[in-house]
Amino acid sequence: MAQLHTQPYDIERASFEIIARELGDRELDPLQAPIIKRVIHTTADFSFADSLVFTKGAVERAWDALRRGATILTDTNMARSGISRPALAALGCTCACYMADEDVAERAREQGTTRAFASMDKACGIAGPLIIAVGNAPTALLRLCELMDEGRISPDLVIGVPVGFVNVVEAKEEVLARSVPAIVARGRKGGSTVAAAIVNALLYQLTRDES
Amino acid sequence: MAQLHTQPYDIERASFEIIARELGDRELDPLQAPIIKRVIHTTADFSFADSLVFTKGAVERAWDALRRGATILTDTNMARSGISRPALAALGCTCACYMADEDVAERAREQGTTRAFASMDKACGIAGPLIIAVGNAPTALLRLCELMDEGRISPDLVIGVPVGFVNVVEAKEEVLARSVPAIVARGRKGGSTVAAAIVNALLYQLTRDES
Repeated sequence: MAQLHTQPYDIERASFEIIARELGDRELDPLQAPIIKRVIHTTADFSFADSLVFTKGAVERAWDALRRGATILTDTNMARSGISRPALAALGCTCACYMADEDVAERAREQGTTRAFASMDKACGIAGPLIIAVGNAPTALLRLCELMDEGRISPDLVIGVPVGFVNVVEAKEEVLARSVPAIVARGRKGGSTVAAAIVNALLYQLTRDES
Repeated sequence: MAQLHTQPYDIERASFEIIARELGDRELDPLQAPIIKRVIHTTADFSFADSLVFTKGAVERAWDALRRGATILTDTNMARSGISRPALAALGCTCACYMADEDVAERAREQGTTRAFASMDKACGIAGPLIIAVGNAPTALLRLCELMDEGRISPDLVIGVPVGFVNVVEAKEEVLARSVPAIVARGRKGGSTVAAAIVNALLYQLTRDES
């Protein structure tokens, strides 16, 4: 039972070396590469190297928002708890999830929608730079598209990586059909860990010295 | 933008129908099928139908532990926050994660190990039925194997589904080489969402009327 005393950071570095080796001579955009690699690190699934789509300028816009102390809104508490608190603190950013809020539950009941849907309505009240990371609920993405179309919300970045079999593929394409800066995992795959990994990769690029 | 008002439970049912259809006439053990399907539901990754391994009697032993109000210990707060609180409450079970505990951080520093390692040492103090769900840290599984070998801990179930590239494949095989009841995702894949999905599937089989 070797390497029981290996430290997490060493394991992470060794993992990224394996990922780089297995990606081979594939050409990745240098701004996108750390994000793609971190998602593979989180999932051990190399298909994300093909499915992750970045709209033009999305990474730079996200960095700008993070440097200005963005709010990062997630659609699950699971994703929220996967985002690095030290990195958030270093940049003066905050992370929120409205899914367990009583006012959101009440609004969803009243309107016959989902809490994910209602949480996007609540997000319209967030002031300042805003990143919305959806790893679970396609209805959150679909409602977000409606709200953007109505000019009620204008995020600096949408991370659209819900996982699943119903509405998921379509909801991601709806995001990509708009002009909002976006990072999307096309197809069925994604999840709360993927959403958190993308946020962490963006944060680490600004707070760590890593390639 | 269809189905914006579809409720989560309907979406879940439709998703499970798609999963069953795509699994085709594959024969799944009836006790294992709801767990395998929920992991696929969580990941959109059908490879788990091949990689998930159940030791003989593992599901029944887990149910017995849950019916007796088990403690479920996870190796990430992310996995912990993904486990259904209503289902836990219905069975009188509790969920814990020691990774952010100050005594665990201190022990890890003193011993030059990881917090995941130290959190397994702390788990030896848990009384009563115990399920350990590891979705992230192979060192947690390796330390758990040592502690089981020394007779210091005897979980009713080990869920061994860390994800990654270093020590992960080996740590899972170490668990399977022991006599502990186990559900393991062989290979590199897994994660906190997979760990939570397996726990939830076990809980739902006892608290929901689902096939």
